[in-house]
Amino acid sequence: MYNSSMKKIEPKTLKGFRDFLPLEARKRQYVINTLKSVFELYGFEPLETPVLEYEEILTGKYGDEGDKLMYRFEDNGKRRVAMRYDQTVPLARVVAQYQNQLAFPFKRYQVQNVWRAENTQKGRYREFIQCDMDTVGVDSPLADAEIITAAAKAYQNLGFKNFKIVINDRIIFSDLVTSRQVIEEKDLPMVVRCLDKLKKIGREKVLEEMVKNGLTTEQSTDILQTIEMQKPTERLTQIMKALEDVGLDQSVMTFSPTLARGLDYYTGMIFEIESEEYPYGSLCGGGRYNELIGMFAGKDIPAVGLAVGFDRTIEAMEALNLFPAEINNAVTQILITVFSEELKDKALQIASQFRLNKIATEIYLGEIKEKNALEKQLKYADAKNIPLVLFAGPQELEKNIVTLRDMKTREQQSGTLEEIIKICISLNQ
Amino acid sequence: MYNSSMKKIEPKTLKGFRDFLPLEARKRQYVINTLKSVFELYGFEPLETPVLEYEEILTGKYGDEGDKLMYRFEDNGKRRVAMRYDQTVPLARVVAQYQNQLAFPFKRYQVQNVWRAENTQKGRYREFIQCDMDTVGVDSPLADAEIITAAAKAYQNLGFKNFKIVINDRIIFSDLVTSRQVIEEKDLPMVVRCLDKLKKIGREKVLEEMVKNGLTTEQSTDILQTIEMQKPTERLTQIMKALEDVGLDQSVMTFSPTLARGLDYYTGMIFEIESEEYPYGSLCGGGRYNELIGMFAGKDIPAVGLAVGFDRTIEAMEALNLFPAEINNAVTQILITVFSEELKDKALQIASQFRLNKIATEIYLGEIKEKNALEKQLKYADAKNIPLVLFAGPQELEKNIVTLRDMKTREQQSGTLEEIIKICISLNQ
Repeated sequence: MYNSSMKKIEPKTLKGFRDFLPLEARKRQYVINTLKSVFELYGFEPLETPVLEYEEILTGKYGDEGDKLMYRFEDNGKRRVAMRYDQTVPLARVVAQYQNQLAFPFKRYQVQNVWRAENTQKGRYREFIQCDMDTVGVDSPLADAEIITAAAKAYQNLGFKNFKIVINDRIIFSDLVTSRQVIEEKDLPMVVRCLDKLKKIGREKVLEEMVKNGLTTEQSTDILQTIEMQKPTERLTQIMKALEDVGLDQSVMTFSPTLARGLDYYTGMIFEIESEEYPYGSLCGGGRYNELIGMFAGKDIPAVGLAVGFDRTIEAMEALNLFPAEINNAVTQILITVFSEELKDKALQIASQFRLNKIATEIYLGEIKEKNALEKQLKYADAKNIPLVLFAGPQELEKNIVTLRDMKTREQQSGTLEEIIKICISLNQ
Repeated sequence: MYNSSMKKIEPKTLKGFRDFLPLEARKRQYVINTLKSVFELYGFEPLETPVLEYEEILTGKYGDEGDKLMYRFEDNGKRRVAMRYDQTVPLARVVAQYQNQLAFPFKRYQVQNVWRAENTQKGRYREFIQCDMDTVGVDSPLADAEIITAAAKAYQNLGFKNFKIVINDRIIFSDLVTSRQVIEEKDLPMVVRCLDKLKKIGREKVLEEMVKNGLTTEQSTDILQTIEMQKPTERLTQIMKALEDVGLDQSVMTFSPTLARGLDYYTGMIFEIESEEYPYGSLCGGGRYNELIGMFAGKDIPAVGLAVGFDRTIEAMEALNLFPAEINNAVTQILITVFSEELKDKALQIASQFRLNKIATEIYLGEIKEKNALEKQLKYADAKNIPLVLFAGPQELEKNIVTLRDMKTREQQSGTLEEIIKICISLNQ
């Protein structure tokens, strides 16, 4: 297919889009598998939705900013289509479209890519995985508690030790409008957005921002002080009681009346998971949002959920060295070397025996006619981080044995094929 | 968020795009996991590439038809971009872009969606998963044999019993041009495309098509007869010897000199896996293509690989009843019912004990104040196919026991929580 007259095209990826070579892909798979197994432990089931949706399904749901950042275009059939921007609006569509097929409460998780044409910067990409878990159709505090418990379990299972669950209730903010009447309803989203920056920019700057947005200095100070003095709402007390019942260590829980979370749509409990050793923003967050999921069904449907910050979680795991050491090894556990053209058959038979014992096995596939073929095979094992190598040369086969080499320790041991396979199985456990 | 003044938008998906509700999503996950574990058993490693590529990377690589069916558009930054159309061209890009980081032979698998704006029909979608596995950088017959062995193992592990591996060598066709000189080079792709239809339309129609495409009746008959008389090439004999060495049952192998496979780019061994009980086209296919992967690297790079027909494999598994029966159950193994508001705490504690024992557990999250609350909870378990239900009412708790109900047999048994958890663990194995 290739011929030198072809226009040379530079092999490159779009800004904000990433290839994941095997080591990175394995790490991502490890995190996804850990999360999925926790989601399923709590009875959440997988859901998949398409990458492309009718544009009208997605536009207007994420504010002007969302419409601007969304990948949208006209398809070959002149339909306006848009690429998945999050997993919550598709969930709302699914809930409306299949409401007669689904059993409620509908508990689903979803692990898929989304696309946003953001300005790229460290840790921010245009294609990235979202891991969401939501319970749709019930307003019970048990459902809120379950989401938080599952999040805690997920971070435990990923190996995080010192994490904190910060919790709050959005009612504390809406009370500012309704029962306390210190601000007008129209200012509430602005106040929430300012509060959301408290940790990053500090108290003074938050007050300044509120003033910049039209409140007086007195009002701003009053709002902040009022919020800071709040105690947990009755609902939060119920949720925290449920968390105690399921045995969640109370020392990891912190009530913070100033926790805001940026998104407008939360209506009750909100929470974030933070790592004390990786203080670069929350790893995971979520909350109750009772007025969003019904958008296509034409009625309010209560919901509560969480979203894992997938890329940040992986960054934190790298920084804190939480990946198991074996992840740096190849998928392949053993390389069967090929001594000579004549002994290929034998090598194939040996490889087949290892695979029958469920040991991930490669047989060397390169040229083996050269003098230094064996050296080249060891180099290959090294380059791919294959931990074990097997030799079955004429001297060994004469004695009916094979030789196993540990690539790290350089130690070698010989034995019958059955003996060596047994050793490999035990190393594998 | 929802208010009744909002424009009512019909919740629907684009033609050729699918939602996968939990049961379907679990089936897909089962097939993917089975395939991945076989790919890894043979030492293949995961690779992920972006959904969007620069348009120039993809266009011109799949013929005019491919360019027509490709989803292409201008992004917000005025770049021409295209959605992944297959996984081979991205692999070629990756091999060129990271050639200094990758160890060769590079053995990778890739399981991702691709998009093609095809006319939709039964079994043909616009968004569908491809499962590819390829060995790049070696031309050894062992590599060819390994791909075939892995394919056979994958279909074995998926539960297929009577499958056939049909094998051929494209050299048989190119010899018609070079050594036999019965056709001109320009006619070769057309002849291959006609032969590819042999099984579907029969001998007579294939001959007619060749004549329609400019060959004489004598030429066409000569070509077909010449091909039909061919014996396996030397290379095929080597590959089949290697398949024997790894213990592949020779009765599943068939050499068929008329096997063509539609794609132009194969240069050597080609194969397909067919199910005798599901004769609606091949389930899986692949072959050697030594002139494609180098397209961005500017040199020929040998490669051999396979692609699983994911949707057709799932259809065949449905038809042949190959999914394990448990797949129809919910992810959740047991539902902990809540007897009353007062016993919520107790139910939460019980649920937590089951989860500590790695049993996927739900606690009922709906309203429990109504009279018929327990009935509603059993209905929920039924609707979601949760196989087990636990009762812990006041009478049971007084005696320090709980009651387990099998939803299928309607049998119940009581015991201490520890006893019942042990029973559930054993049911789980």
